[in-house]
Amino acid sequence: MNDPVTDRREIRELLENWVIWRDAGHWDRFRTVWHDDGVMMATWFQGTADEFIRVSKEGWDKGVSILHFLGGISIDLAGDRAVSQTKMTISQRGDVDGVPCDIVCTGRFYDFLERRDGRWGLVLRQPIYEKDTLMPVSPTARPELDAALLARFPVGYRHLAYIQTRLGYTVKPDMPGLKGPEVEHLYARGARFLAGGSL
Amino acid sequence: MNDPVTDRREIRELLENWVIWRDAGHWDRFRTVWHDDGVMMATWFQGTADEFIRVSKEGWDKGVSILHFLGGISIDLAGDRAVSQTKMTISQRGDVDGVPCDIVCTGRFYDFLERRDGRWGLVLRQPIYEKDTLMPVSPTARPELDAALLARFPVGYRHLAYIQTRLGYTVKPDMPGLKGPEVEHLYARGARFLAGGSL
Amino acid sequence: MNDPVTDRREIRELLENWVIWRDAGHWDRFRTVWHDDGVMMATWFQGTADEFIRVSKEGWDKGVSILHFLGGISIDLAGDRAVSQTKMTISQRGDVDGVPCDIVCTGRFYDFLERRDGRWGLVLRQPIYEKDTLMPVSPTARPELDAALLARFPVGYRHLAYIQTRLGYTVKPDMPGLKGPEVEHLYARGARFLAGGSL
Repeated sequence: MNDPVTDRREIRELLENWVIWRDAGHWDRFRTVWHDDGVMMATWFQGTADEFIRVSKEGWDKGVSILHFLGGISIDLAGDRAVSQTKMTISQRGDVDGVPCDIVCTGRFYDFLERRDGRWGLVLRQPIYEKDTLMPVSPTARPELDAALLARFPVGYRHLAYIQTRLGYTVKPDMPGLKGPEVEHLYARGARFLAGGSL
Repeated sequence: MNDPVTDRREIRELLENWVIWRDAGHWDRFRTVWHDDGVMMATWFQGTADEFIRVSKEGWDKGVSILHFLGGISIDLAGDRAVSQTKMTISQRGDVDGVPCDIVCTGRFYDFLERRDGRWGLVLRQPIYEKDTLMPVSPTARPELDAALLARFPVGYRHLAYIQTRLGYTVKPDMPGLKGPEVEHLYARGARFLAGGSL
Repeated sequence: MNDPVTDRREIRELLENWVIWRDAGHWDRFRTVWHDDGVMMATWFQGTADEFIRVSKEGWDKGVSILHFLGGISIDLAGDRAVSQTKMTISQRGDVDGVPCDIVCTGRFYDFLERRDGRWGLVLRQPIYEKDTLMPVSPTARPELDAALLARFPVGYRHLAYIQTRLGYTVKPDMPGLKGPEVEHLYARGARFLAGGSL
């Protein structure tokens, strides 16, 4: 049996490895942070870890540029289960109406983890999207945004959704943000999971 | 008695919990990182932890949007006292002349901590404000800034002060920056505290 | 002999102290994270730790403004050697055609470390430059960039190179980026180092 100090250390390492390995395209190592039934929820994809890796690799190969950055971790432990919250940014680069732009979305990874056979792994990653912004990579040109398309998405990830829609992805419109029923529902789900309930 | 490894781990967890819990509006948990006489120094507020939580909650309820992000921690320990420095950004969103904007201020949390009855807690948080920038959330519009108002504040937090002044807060004009007598004074204060002197 | 848990903790502390101490201008403490033969590779400087500290101090004294921020650490250990990857931003402020601007470059510190006489120290820091952007500090003015100068450098650090060239530095044109032979070569070098080969 682990002690809580070890548990927290192993979970922290897992969370940090996630961003280093995914963003560098180290897919084999990236697979190891997930349990086999692990599920990833993103604006542009929802499904199993294996599927997520497949489509991430496809995106990587065709030049989709997404980078993550972490800004603080808080972990709630309950035996062989844990819920962690990690400050993060998702930074996507792409052309918007011919102008190279960066979209930076700020939020939290809200993660459900389990220790099975002595190994911590991700069971579910549900990000919380708090706000985002779009800026040209160089100040030499400014894109014209389609205000109607932008307004279709929640304030937490509307610029991210904008570019992902333009890239051809179908963006999920009801992801949790900083406030509102979606994030309250997520907190309740986390508490239930820690209390031993089903996911 | 703690060992230094445990002390550092507990302080790090406290520092990371601070940003996760405050920014998510988890006020009860946020209260636990402070000692009862803990003091918060911010550009727009200076006072006890309890008062800080009260006004932060007020701001949250009326839509003031502030998020923090951490970027590296360094801790100096001396028995039951510690001074920690943590790279951070303060990111505030608000309208500037009708244009939604993000202000991002980069600096360090300079923290005074004590272990009392076996529990580490914040005694004083004095941020160092190193530089800040203001950008529209979308590149579709540009605000006109009042150059005279902007120039009233130090380079480390002038855009932050700008929007906070417009929101009706009174902004402290002499906070420490990357260089200068204010930050030298703060370093001296930290050294004195670690040597057992009064705060 | 250390255990791996201690090794990882000490390396993490070293990596975080690097950014806190360098950016604050705490040169004496900053020196302690390096071994005597440690080498720093940056876009504007390549050489020993002592030389890096000398030129960093020179830059600091004449107002060159560079700040770092960390966003996640992953460490590979092999006995008394380690390779670590750390998400980072390099943020440089300076005038571009008379307009105060911030350049933010996102990438990874790719570090070679050794434990000698019981102390971990940096042997080589080779950053990976993944993308960068340039924005005015305030939205009141926009600089005109020289497109030809900008295009001379890789996409991972072209705005950083732009301002550094204007400041009079000679910028290395073949630093590793997210993809390509330079970063593949670096990964191979890291693997060889961990296997006991020469640097």
